[in-house]
Amino acid sequence: MTDAVRAALRGQRIELPSWAFGNSGTRFKVFAQQGVPRTPYEKIEDAAQVHRYTGVAPTVALHIPWDKVEDYTHLAGFAKEHGVGLGTINANVFQDNDYMLGSVTNPDPAVRRKATDHLLECVEIAAAVGVRDVKLWFSDGTNYPGQDSIRARQDRLAEALQETYDALGEDQRLLLEYKLFEPAFYTTDVPDWGTAYAHCLRLGDKAQVVIDTGHHAPGTNIEFIVAFLLREAKLGAFDFNSRFYADDDLMVGSADPFQLFRIMHEIVLADALRQEAGIAFMLDQCHNIEPKIPAQIRSVMNVQEATAKALLVDHDALAKAQDEGDVLGANAVFMDAYNTDVRPLLAEVRQEMGLDPDPVTAYRDSGYADKIVAERVGGQQAGWGA
Amino acid sequence: MTDAVRAALRGQRIELPSWAFGNSGTRFKVFAQQGVPRTPYEKIEDAAQVHRYTGVAPTVALHIPWDKVEDYTHLAGFAKEHGVGLGTINANVFQDNDYMLGSVTNPDPAVRRKATDHLLECVEIAAAVGVRDVKLWFSDGTNYPGQDSIRARQDRLAEALQETYDALGEDQRLLLEYKLFEPAFYTTDVPDWGTAYAHCLRLGDKAQVVIDTGHHAPGTNIEFIVAFLLREAKLGAFDFNSRFYADDDLMVGSADPFQLFRIMHEIVLADALRQEAGIAFMLDQCHNIEPKIPAQIRSVMNVQEATAKALLVDHDALAKAQDEGDVLGANAVFMDAYNTDVRPLLAEVRQEMGLDPDPVTAYRDSGYADKIVAERVGGQQAGWGA
Amino acid sequence: MTDAVRAALRGQRIELPSWAFGNSGTRFKVFAQQGVPRTPYEKIEDAAQVHRYTGVAPTVALHIPWDKVEDYTHLAGFAKEHGVGLGTINANVFQDNDYMLGSVTNPDPAVRRKATDHLLECVEIAAAVGVRDVKLWFSDGTNYPGQDSIRARQDRLAEALQETYDALGEDQRLLLEYKLFEPAFYTTDVPDWGTAYAHCLRLGDKAQVVIDTGHHAPGTNIEFIVAFLLREAKLGAFDFNSRFYADDDLMVGSADPFQLFRIMHEIVLADALRQEAGIAFMLDQCHNIEPKIPAQIRSVMNVQEATAKALLVDHDALAKAQDEGDVLGANAVFMDAYNTDVRPLLAEVRQEMGLDPDPVTAYRDSGYADKIVAERVGGQQAGWGA
Amino acid sequence: MTDAVRAALRGQRIELPSWAFGNSGTRFKVFAQQGVPRTPYEKIEDAAQVHRYTGVAPTVALHIPWDKVEDYTHLAGFAKEHGVGLGTINANVFQDNDYMLGSVTNPDPAVRRKATDHLLECVEIAAAVGVRDVKLWFSDGTNYPGQDSIRARQDRLAEALQETYDALGEDQRLLLEYKLFEPAFYTTDVPDWGTAYAHCLRLGDKAQVVIDTGHHAPGTNIEFIVAFLLREAKLGAFDFNSRFYADDDLMVGSADPFQLFRIMHEIVLADALRQEAGIAFMLDQCHNIEPKIPAQIRSVMNVQEATAKALLVDHDALAKAQDEGDVLGANAVFMDAYNTDVRPLLAEVRQEMGLDPDPVTAYRDSGYADKIVAERVGGQQAGWGA
Repeated sequence: MTDAVRAALRGQRIELPSWAFGNSGTRFKVFAQQGVPRTPYEKIEDAAQVHRYTGVAPTVALHIPWDKVEDYTHLAGFAKEHGVGLGTINANVFQDNDYMLGSVTNPDPAVRRKATDHLLECVEIAAAVGVRDVKLWFSDGTNYPGQDSIRARQDRLAEALQETYDALGEDQRLLLEYKLFEPAFYTTDVPDWGTAYAHCLRLGDKAQVVIDTGHHAPGTNIEFIVAFLLREAKLGAFDFNSRFYADDDLMVGSADPFQLFRIMHEIVLADALRQEAGIAFMLDQCHNIEPKIPAQIRSVMNVQEATAKALLVDHDALAKAQDEGDVLGANAVFMDAYNTDVRPLLAEVRQEMGLDPDPVTAYRDSGYADKIVAERVGGQQAGWGA
Repeated sequence: MTDAVRAALRGQRIELPSWAFGNSGTRFKVFAQQGVPRTPYEKIEDAAQVHRYTGVAPTVALHIPWDKVEDYTHLAGFAKEHGVGLGTINANVFQDNDYMLGSVTNPDPAVRRKATDHLLECVEIAAAVGVRDVKLWFSDGTNYPGQDSIRARQDRLAEALQETYDALGEDQRLLLEYKLFEPAFYTTDVPDWGTAYAHCLRLGDKAQVVIDTGHHAPGTNIEFIVAFLLREAKLGAFDFNSRFYADDDLMVGSADPFQLFRIMHEIVLADALRQEAGIAFMLDQCHNIEPKIPAQIRSVMNVQEATAKALLVDHDALAKAQDEGDVLGANAVFMDAYNTDVRPLLAEVRQEMGLDPDPVTAYRDSGYADKIVAERVGGQQAGWGA
Repeated sequence: MTDAVRAALRGQRIELPSWAFGNSGTRFKVFAQQGVPRTPYEKIEDAAQVHRYTGVAPTVALHIPWDKVEDYTHLAGFAKEHGVGLGTINANVFQDNDYMLGSVTNPDPAVRRKATDHLLECVEIAAAVGVRDVKLWFSDGTNYPGQDSIRARQDRLAEALQETYDALGEDQRLLLEYKLFEPAFYTTDVPDWGTAYAHCLRLGDKAQVVIDTGHHAPGTNIEFIVAFLLREAKLGAFDFNSRFYADDDLMVGSADPFQLFRIMHEIVLADALRQEAGIAFMLDQCHNIEPKIPAQIRSVMNVQEATAKALLVDHDALAKAQDEGDVLGANAVFMDAYNTDVRPLLAEVRQEMGLDPDPVTAYRDSGYADKIVAERVGGQQAGWGA
Repeated sequence: MTDAVRAALRGQRIELPSWAFGNSGTRFKVFAQQGVPRTPYEKIEDAAQVHRYTGVAPTVALHIPWDKVEDYTHLAGFAKEHGVGLGTINANVFQDNDYMLGSVTNPDPAVRRKATDHLLECVEIAAAVGVRDVKLWFSDGTNYPGQDSIRARQDRLAEALQETYDALGEDQRLLLEYKLFEPAFYTTDVPDWGTAYAHCLRLGDKAQVVIDTGHHAPGTNIEFIVAFLLREAKLGAFDFNSRFYADDDLMVGSADPFQLFRIMHEIVLADALRQEAGIAFMLDQCHNIEPKIPAQIRSVMNVQEATAKALLVDHDALAKAQDEGDVLGANAVFMDAYNTDVRPLLAEVRQEMGLDPDPVTAYRDSGYADKIVAERVGGQQAGWGA
């Protein structure tokens, strides 16, 4: 079994978000950090560091317009030179002044047109650089009961999704994300997986649901949703992060590592870890108070550790105990894998890949952090621009 | 407008649950009350009292086997004599010792067979007494991570649902209820509306989703689900009750009357109040510490008041403000209806229907409560038999 | 009774937050609105409009340094000319770059010194303008388990509070606010009322707890806390706002008007509405998408309506039903008040006070909104400066 | 360091609840298990098995009247013969019919008298068998707004607590437990740690707070409460169990093992693990679907594993990183301990104690389970008697 586990771990792929390298914060304060990228190019340089030391993070998701450049092909080439590639294109229809009352669900048709045009632009950018996935998250919703018609907004949403879907190339996908609340506080227009699922079902096979691990109501069993969407062949991607309360966007695995293990267990059970299964495993995080590059390295490692544990579950013993109704026995098999210290195994896997067994230390010793602090002086640091 | 409102209120139909008249409680204690029914016949007598004073609660839902009788036709006749009719048949596959690890999702095929047979029996009973709806709620789920396969349980669930669905008569419906947790504490097999919706979609037009207002995670926007399922033509019924924390099963409208108004607003907006729309409005409550008959009367009145307010919303003014993006204006139109005291209107409606304008006092003055305390001595009081 | 109710309503005082008139938003976007104040002076002009039409909002809370001016006495004089006065001084120790890892609980003593000095400055400002209350809310906390010592941070907090308390003048008070989360996501240093209470108890009589209605875990019964702190004579103030999920900071009374009524019921029961009781009733809200002045007017009216209903509760009938263990009867007395439409009563009260019975329309007709849009061109709009 | 860790683990003491060996369930169903004790004596026999294989569970908490016997001294002697002792006496004032509307907070003084008398009886029983702790949990509360006076109930509670406190012997303690909800659904009379703390503070040094890990609102940071109460010297005991949603009472460590580690970290940091610190570490669980004795063994082991990890935290390195504001470094030190597989260490500790390194297997191989199934035929199985 170990060989298969090692192979699976070597073959794992985790996508990094360009925006994790820029400044971020809360509505109360964005604390700027030294050495933060000023351009999409510098973000890619930083992301390349994460891949350099982990070996499993070879692509970088972009956020448009945060990562708007003149020439995306040039950016893709730059990424390639740095050992990485461009990943999912994330549309952003929440920061224009026109979007105060919604983007694609806005009561004003002109605003909806503008928003949908942006979605189409994202499809085009993705096509231009040969990227499969366009990810849609809408901040759309309402703050007050009665503010707008829930149903009318669904109709408008469906229309914009359809137009975007129709523009997809043969090998492209539309990934639809849901979120319980924030920034809308009474309703969001895609609040839960059921809503995203229903829309994707109507759109067709190229529309898939994204699970952001921070976007649920308290008490939601996320691995159930993972298992259910896998059964329905409607799970397209993850946005990994951690939360204690709301959409805290902390490092994945830092708040509830056992939950992350349970999620990866469902992935492994459904044989959905391998790339051909078509699940995109992305990070989507904020590093408000910790340095960004090592935080991304740590996050990648956390996903790796949860995955390694999930791969170690003895599926035969588990199935046997489950069939026999042996509640404690089945749980014991499951916990046995979780309680295993997989760090030595991962250190070995890294060495097999020609990497330092300790990515955090290797990065720290590289001097890169000091270098960017020294070099990136002046200019406008990247951030959300809220 | 007032005439239409009055007509709508006169035509409203709310179904009572037979089990609300029996004893109920928590795992800590069931406090028996005096005068509680000993038989399904006595439950129907009590339910008939609620209809007598409210005029809008003409049917009584049954729970099998709690309401098992030799001859359902005889029970239906008895109900008719008392001015009411039999309503939804509720299956119960959570109280047999065999169901400790699940009913239709149990790993043991023999247990699944037994559970499915009970569902089929419920379809038969419904057919025998000419009842349209069979409602399925499953306590099935797991308490511990790893205890059973989430996916295998979905497969088993789908199989049992399909067999039950196939047994439905032409005019019958299968109503599928979801619940976040309790009595299962790690996963339930139908935890949310998305799961119920997906199953109903595969089953076909005769399968519809039930919204129990107490079965959601904290923060869930229930009226969104109402609006969404109405748009998808997949909302079949409500189980009305109130909650502050979990599935508290308090009197509907007692914990958050504004939420109940918002739910009824979506119903009114979609013109789904009238009976032809096919939404069954049922109560599903426990009266652990308050007397049961007046608690049911109060609950019916709470639904009526929320409905009356929803009917008073000025839809034209609301739509205009919404179209103009007038956040405060739209909210004000909405709140204007909610803040109206509709009790005088409902008193008039009752008088138009030949009823006492004050059902609570009329019931209290009737002496019925004393009568059943005096008469129902001995025997085994009805309860959940947990 | 009505005379007493009217008198109580005429005597009610609600404090407005200066920051509600500036721009605000979420981490995703701050949508700037036209006509927004550029200076503390303009904020006071706007606040004065709210008082002008409601008659019960005669003071304006300041946030330092958002409302920093050269001469606070001059600002107080300006307020007086506009018919209002300065209210609670709110310290702000969450926006300096030094506070990334905490202010008064920061591991670095120099940062703690700086933060405490700011608190002392706020006490001085309050003293200078004759304001009783200094309100402290700390964004301090940690994002990751292990990040800092929970206990050491309590020690540091206690030290800073003590130093601030010692600087209070005879008639001054320190108001300590608690908050479950945001912007800190693993622990906050004052997460709940118990923590605030324990600190205030040690400090002494001039330290009191602030209840912000949006700062609790889901399911928290806020009116219980109100009743408990009143019993302990440790309730100093409210920060009123509404929430559906987290600290949404919506208009008070807009998400759960019944909860607001229940809170005001505890206030009325304890005879704590009158000003001599020393409870400061403040608004603390964001108007991210709605116009700010009418939103404040609506919020004041919502508090008035909840108060009027609370004043209408028949305390004798309630106590009688409670003593008799009449669950439904007691609840009915309570709901009878809540279900009353108090808007006509409040319209009359306003007329008695020489005000327009309809503050929203009166404001709208005044032309003030157009005036400030026209006049306030150029300059830097006020906001949180996050 | 390892020697100290081993010594600490050998010296750890975990108390078992007698009721965990009886039947339990939800309001929907109690599934009876074979071999379940019929008497307090048989419960003690079962508890002794748990201690026999773990070596760290030498006391058994009793619940009065569930464990009512003629002669408690005789019961204590029986326990001693079986290698264990009697532990905390738990009062039960929630199952008499008189307590429907509350016990010590009931509006009826006669009911309050009866309830307080029971508390006094528990103090006497504890004194009779030389037990230090009497633990009070009240199911008291209300289901409906207005049902009773929140404040009057606090007055009544304070009175009963005072009378009970006054009856304590010199070395006895009153442990006060809090709970957010269930079985009361609108308010409980001791909903949170702040309420319990305030009452204990007034009572005096012999009154301490109990933290039941399942009794909090979603999102509550329990280890903060642990650290805070330790700082205030007001933490008396734990009721350990796990929850995903409400008070699920699952095996401790099964839902969120990382949380249990964080709790034990605060205990270790405050040097409160050793018995002289006076913290009682009790289990309080239901085993609704799993066999009870091995579930208790597993629970004890889960606490041991969390404790071992907490003991392995490198406090010097942690403090250094915290002082330097090294967010990632401090978290890494913390996680390093958590990610360690401590099962080999605990196996060694058990061998040092003369125990089998694998308690679960040792118990299973003992044949005890079969023996009790065969022997315990007839009689009334123990349960909650709800």
